[in-house]
Amino acid sequence: MTSYDDSRLGRARVSDNPELIAYYDELAKVEAGALWTVANEIEPWYPQPKSVPVLWRYQELRPLVHRALPLVKADDAGRRVVMLVNPGRRELSAAVGLLYTGLQIMGPGEAMTAHRHQAAALRFVHEGHGAWTIVDGQKLRVGPRDFAVTPNGSWHEHGNESEQAPVVWQDGLDIPLVNALDAGFYEVHPELYQQPGKVVNSSVLSYGGNLLPYGMEKWTRPYSPVFGYPWEPSYQALLDLAKAHEGSPYDGVIMAYANPLTGGPVMPTMGAHLQLLRPGQATTAHRHTGSVVYTAAKGRGYSVIAGRRFDWQQGDIFCVPSWAWHEHANLDDAEDACLFSFHDFPVMHSLGLYREEAYTADGGHQPLVQDSER
Amino acid sequence: MTSYDDSRLGRARVSDNPELIAYYDELAKVEAGALWTVANEIEPWYPQPKSVPVLWRYQELRPLVHRALPLVKADDAGRRVVMLVNPGRRELSAAVGLLYTGLQIMGPGEAMTAHRHQAAALRFVHEGHGAWTIVDGQKLRVGPRDFAVTPNGSWHEHGNESEQAPVVWQDGLDIPLVNALDAGFYEVHPELYQQPGKVVNSSVLSYGGNLLPYGMEKWTRPYSPVFGYPWEPSYQALLDLAKAHEGSPYDGVIMAYANPLTGGPVMPTMGAHLQLLRPGQATTAHRHTGSVVYTAAKGRGYSVIAGRRFDWQQGDIFCVPSWAWHEHANLDDAEDACLFSFHDFPVMHSLGLYREEAYTADGGHQPLVQDSER
Amino acid sequence: MTSYDDSRLGRARVSDNPELIAYYDELAKVEAGALWTVANEIEPWYPQPKSVPVLWRYQELRPLVHRALPLVKADDAGRRVVMLVNPGRRELSAAVGLLYTGLQIMGPGEAMTAHRHQAAALRFVHEGHGAWTIVDGQKLRVGPRDFAVTPNGSWHEHGNESEQAPVVWQDGLDIPLVNALDAGFYEVHPELYQQPGKVVNSSVLSYGGNLLPYGMEKWTRPYSPVFGYPWEPSYQALLDLAKAHEGSPYDGVIMAYANPLTGGPVMPTMGAHLQLLRPGQATTAHRHTGSVVYTAAKGRGYSVIAGRRFDWQQGDIFCVPSWAWHEHANLDDAEDACLFSFHDFPVMHSLGLYREEAYTADGGHQPLVQDSER
Amino acid sequence: MTSYDDSRLGRARVSDNPELIAYYDELAKVEAGALWTVANEIEPWYPQPKSVPVLWRYQELRPLVHRALPLVKADDAGRRVVMLVNPGRRELSAAVGLLYTGLQIMGPGEAMTAHRHQAAALRFVHEGHGAWTIVDGQKLRVGPRDFAVTPNGSWHEHGNESEQAPVVWQDGLDIPLVNALDAGFYEVHPELYQQPGKVVNSSVLSYGGNLLPYGMEKWTRPYSPVFGYPWEPSYQALLDLAKAHEGSPYDGVIMAYANPLTGGPVMPTMGAHLQLLRPGQATTAHRHTGSVVYTAAKGRGYSVIAGRRFDWQQGDIFCVPSWAWHEHANLDDAEDACLFSFHDFPVMHSLGLYREEAYTADGGHQPLVQDSER
Repeated sequence: MTSYDDSRLGRARVSDNPELIAYYDELAKVEAGALWTVANEIEPWYPQPKSVPVLWRYQELRPLVHRALPLVKADDAGRRVVMLVNPGRRELSAAVGLLYTGLQIMGPGEAMTAHRHQAAALRFVHEGHGAWTIVDGQKLRVGPRDFAVTPNGSWHEHGNESEQAPVVWQDGLDIPLVNALDAGFYEVHPELYQQPGKVVNSSVLSYGGNLLPYGMEKWTRPYSPVFGYPWEPSYQALLDLAKAHEGSPYDGVIMAYANPLTGGPVMPTMGAHLQLLRPGQATTAHRHTGSVVYTAAKGRGYSVIAGRRFDWQQGDIFCVPSWAWHEHANLDDAEDACLFSFHDFPVMHSLGLYREEAYTADGGHQPLVQDSER
Repeated sequence: MTSYDDSRLGRARVSDNPELIAYYDELAKVEAGALWTVANEIEPWYPQPKSVPVLWRYQELRPLVHRALPLVKADDAGRRVVMLVNPGRRELSAAVGLLYTGLQIMGPGEAMTAHRHQAAALRFVHEGHGAWTIVDGQKLRVGPRDFAVTPNGSWHEHGNESEQAPVVWQDGLDIPLVNALDAGFYEVHPELYQQPGKVVNSSVLSYGGNLLPYGMEKWTRPYSPVFGYPWEPSYQALLDLAKAHEGSPYDGVIMAYANPLTGGPVMPTMGAHLQLLRPGQATTAHRHTGSVVYTAAKGRGYSVIAGRRFDWQQGDIFCVPSWAWHEHANLDDAEDACLFSFHDFPVMHSLGLYREEAYTADGGHQPLVQDSER
Repeated sequence: MTSYDDSRLGRARVSDNPELIAYYDELAKVEAGALWTVANEIEPWYPQPKSVPVLWRYQELRPLVHRALPLVKADDAGRRVVMLVNPGRRELSAAVGLLYTGLQIMGPGEAMTAHRHQAAALRFVHEGHGAWTIVDGQKLRVGPRDFAVTPNGSWHEHGNESEQAPVVWQDGLDIPLVNALDAGFYEVHPELYQQPGKVVNSSVLSYGGNLLPYGMEKWTRPYSPVFGYPWEPSYQALLDLAKAHEGSPYDGVIMAYANPLTGGPVMPTMGAHLQLLRPGQATTAHRHTGSVVYTAAKGRGYSVIAGRRFDWQQGDIFCVPSWAWHEHANLDDAEDACLFSFHDFPVMHSLGLYREEAYTADGGHQPLVQDSER
Repeated sequence: MTSYDDSRLGRARVSDNPELIAYYDELAKVEAGALWTVANEIEPWYPQPKSVPVLWRYQELRPLVHRALPLVKADDAGRRVVMLVNPGRRELSAAVGLLYTGLQIMGPGEAMTAHRHQAAALRFVHEGHGAWTIVDGQKLRVGPRDFAVTPNGSWHEHGNESEQAPVVWQDGLDIPLVNALDAGFYEVHPELYQQPGKVVNSSVLSYGGNLLPYGMEKWTRPYSPVFGYPWEPSYQALLDLAKAHEGSPYDGVIMAYANPLTGGPVMPTMGAHLQLLRPGQATTAHRHTGSVVYTAAKGRGYSVIAGRRFDWQQGDIFCVPSWAWHEHANLDDAEDACLFSFHDFPVMHSLGLYREEAYTADGGHQPLVQDSER
């Protein structure tokens, strides 16, 4: 790998001197500057994310999330969410890169007003059985480990129809991306609430078994017509694939939640994966452009990210910054372990920025960084 | 609807005379002709298919198909198939338009050699439980009402591993289309037999629940990576869709077997549908360019095609020529009825030739043509 | 190359016997047949077109075409066209494969009524300076060697505004293809004539220099928004390309008339090429699926097609059937020679049927077939 | 237009109190936070770019740019560029949004080393006749007002082969975008210099007249195969279009530099336009997501951006931030005026974030903001 040696020919190698400093001052007066003073910084040899790897333990977050329930009313909070903030991305409220994530809690019987925004959203349920969401007039019920999407621009409102227990689900949004692109819009629903259609989960019912509804109005929106991906068939799909294929060396048996009309990602800015690590499996490391938020959906294991080991169990959330080496392992010798994840790979692919590299030394496993080296 | 009045301005209206006849003779000598002598014929007001609607009763065909078993050896026949031939398309061995269909029978323990051809093929199983096919090295087992594809150019070989009963399946091919386009190729496998991969139905296992395998070699072929669509999940998909949607006025609840990577048809020249008519349902009529071969997959009903009624029950096969009005009805008041069909709509769409029209008179139902009018 | 040996394992090898003949009779009664009686014929080892190579000399055709002028009125003829008919395709009025071509003559001041059809049409002007066409309301003026399109479904009418001389242009249509697919429609314009927009050649003016008009209504039709491709810039494009590239071994310097919005062919069923053979150049042979009609646009040369040599000069028209070996040569040592051609490759590509093969023996040149061998 | 009223139902409306502040402290300890404390800020009603409209006068910049020539050696500077920095985007070295621009000067005979980077680059020449660039082995010569691209990942090196005068060209890059996405890579060419092919401007020569080279290796990269768009044919295309169409109400006669293989933008992250304002024309205002850098290519006029008027003449550069109202006017009553511009609309379209709105009040013209209101 190229070392970061900026005295090389082909890089800026200018030392300041009084004449230059005077020149820079003159440039500044006309809203200009000398490229060579920043060139090496803004054109790095390889990505230099400010995000760092972080693991958020669900058992630590859970009591804090539940405490929010009496502290603020849902509709006063907009949404009652504990967001996960990367230490390197506090000014953007991002969990990693340009991705936001948080844990939202809704008490029994709660229901919130409807809004829509240019940012896209997704949900992954952690606990509770009464959650519902209405997305562009379609009511969905979601239970633990179900995955659902609220594509950019779609009206949505949520609630919990359980009489007993709160619901906690994880939100994933591309808010920091949309803001970085100066493209954010927000609207409150003019009627405050949508009138949902009669059939619950209608899009889930309409797309099964590798068949597509025929003879209906053509779907022309840039996102999946399927708004919900329940856990059971998703996990079953993974188990079936595991019978047919070895899987990826970096990820085990891994699948992408897909738009069945295009084979593409569920939304134009964010995709989501579900992956299975076989009992005892330890993958080898790779790195790629694009940021990822992982949620342990089943079992327990660890991931080594940029040389640091993070142990996880169901409910835990962690992130992998762009271009960081990472590998995953299942710590159980009898049960499989599953990771749900969402990411901005669709952005990388659309813009021609996706790159991937395998870690080839040491049998594909990173050496662990000592704490003193950090 | 425009009547076929060729004396109109804008159509050829030339009467022969001696001078013209002499002129035509001179043209013929240099491999030429006068367009106006054929213009009205080759540019009709609307499609003039030579195919006619036909229904083939399975109970009539079945004994004939079974008789083929002792009459010819499978490998001597190439394939032991009773093909269904439209009275208007005998010179092309077509069932309708440029589509071929036939019933293939394989005895217990039979296995045939492998070949491939430019024509695309599909299968729909009528009876027997031992059928298998190997498509490009992938072994598939198919049972009654399962649908499977052998895309153009893929090596394939078939057999019946049952020890008791023969298998009868229906083949659908685009042979007449490929021949019309002068594009047919045929090859016998150099080893006569393929070496199948270890996992049976691997492509069926790999594409489930609206998730796609990730991190594998990119699929670049112009057809579905899924080679089999078993009956149970396909029928379930239809039942689920029926909960969410009313369906099409012309077809009831109808779905297309899809390429999950594109949302397109299973193959570039032929698509397939599965449709459900609710108990007692009678659809209204429409017509479209493109030819269709239907197979009754469940229940009993009738279809009115170009003003003639054809009653069908499970196993029966019938065809709808291009631009013929057609409508379907379920004759059972308690059970649903299902039609499997395959067609050349992908050709119509790719070439910009698809057109569709609803029958609006008489509540959408065609008057029946009297036998004397035919 | 595989020889056509049908006694091989993997092909039908059944001899008739009385029992089988009786069986065939029974099948025929229920509109059925035994596949093995036709299998080898309908599944040939490689394409077996009925079309043969033909060259039509313009100097032979021209007097015949001009004689049509007084013989029939344009509007009585529909169009006053001498069509070129392949000896193997007379029943389809095809020049080769499923392509039609003809020479249309329009007298000074003539103008015809407007119609539209599902078949697509193109024009290549042979002689005369007054030709015009109105395509979907857009008036185009076309002169010698200009290329213009009338995409499927577009209203069109033609005329000749010269006061002196007739116009002869060549029509190319996919009528036989559209008929083979049972998809032909024809309509006379309800007003008999269109009201053209004010700007002549507006689409030619709107798409220049690898820039596209911006901020206008989105073009959603499946064909090129450019309806005319004048000779001068087309020939210049070829000369420019010849500076930058060696060209194709089979075709010399060759370009495709393109839809600038997609980079695809001008229409979904037919494409067109313009190619330049450098002085003295002789290409090597190849063959491909798809049929081609060539018109010598400049200079003189010969083509060897399926082992027969055809000498051509400007204005001559010839055809290459699917899968026939062919190669081209420029007979002039000082001037370049150009061939215009149109073909059904878009069909081959859309349907996954395109195949191509280089002739590798004998330095890439076919041996000439002796007349006695034909 | 919705006012920014955050006390509304549907927005965060929580006031701090001691209990909440304690809670926030606890959240911070586990790298978490309360969404409602930032929700209104990170989900604004409409885009809130930090960029402001700026105009950079070429006559002010030119002497500063020329002074850089003796101050730093080109290869020590990496590139000798005066970059234009938006007062609101200094930390990103961006001219507007996530776009970078600068003026690069190369002295007579200068030539620099080759590198490549994940960021995409484009050039628009301001002065001098000796400029060349080698992009992925293809040498291009560019003169005043020519437009050229260096797509992401392509090797490139530049120089000036004039013996007399320096060259000044404008660079446009998506560096801030690529950095925001943590996807930047940079490499110095292993040989320091490329070996260019023999034909200069070969891609410009290969794509002319709405024809595409045929029979060559398939182009599979996600950007235009044309690397140069010279001024003369581009301006001619605009003049031709002006004959055929009125143009856009917001932009006059406007065209997009296009990838002729797809009709899409020249690169996946940046597109470029050329537009012509007729003598005396004043367009009406609109706004859209996406940032734009404009360069006056011909004539003189003014633009009103977010209510402020900016007068420009040839060589001046100005920017329009996302969602800012803007309109343009030609101040000359006899000559047309032209604006070159580049933008990130391809990002907006790929990610489903493009929105546009017309200014409908006051005949489409913005009232001018008084300086005291700013």
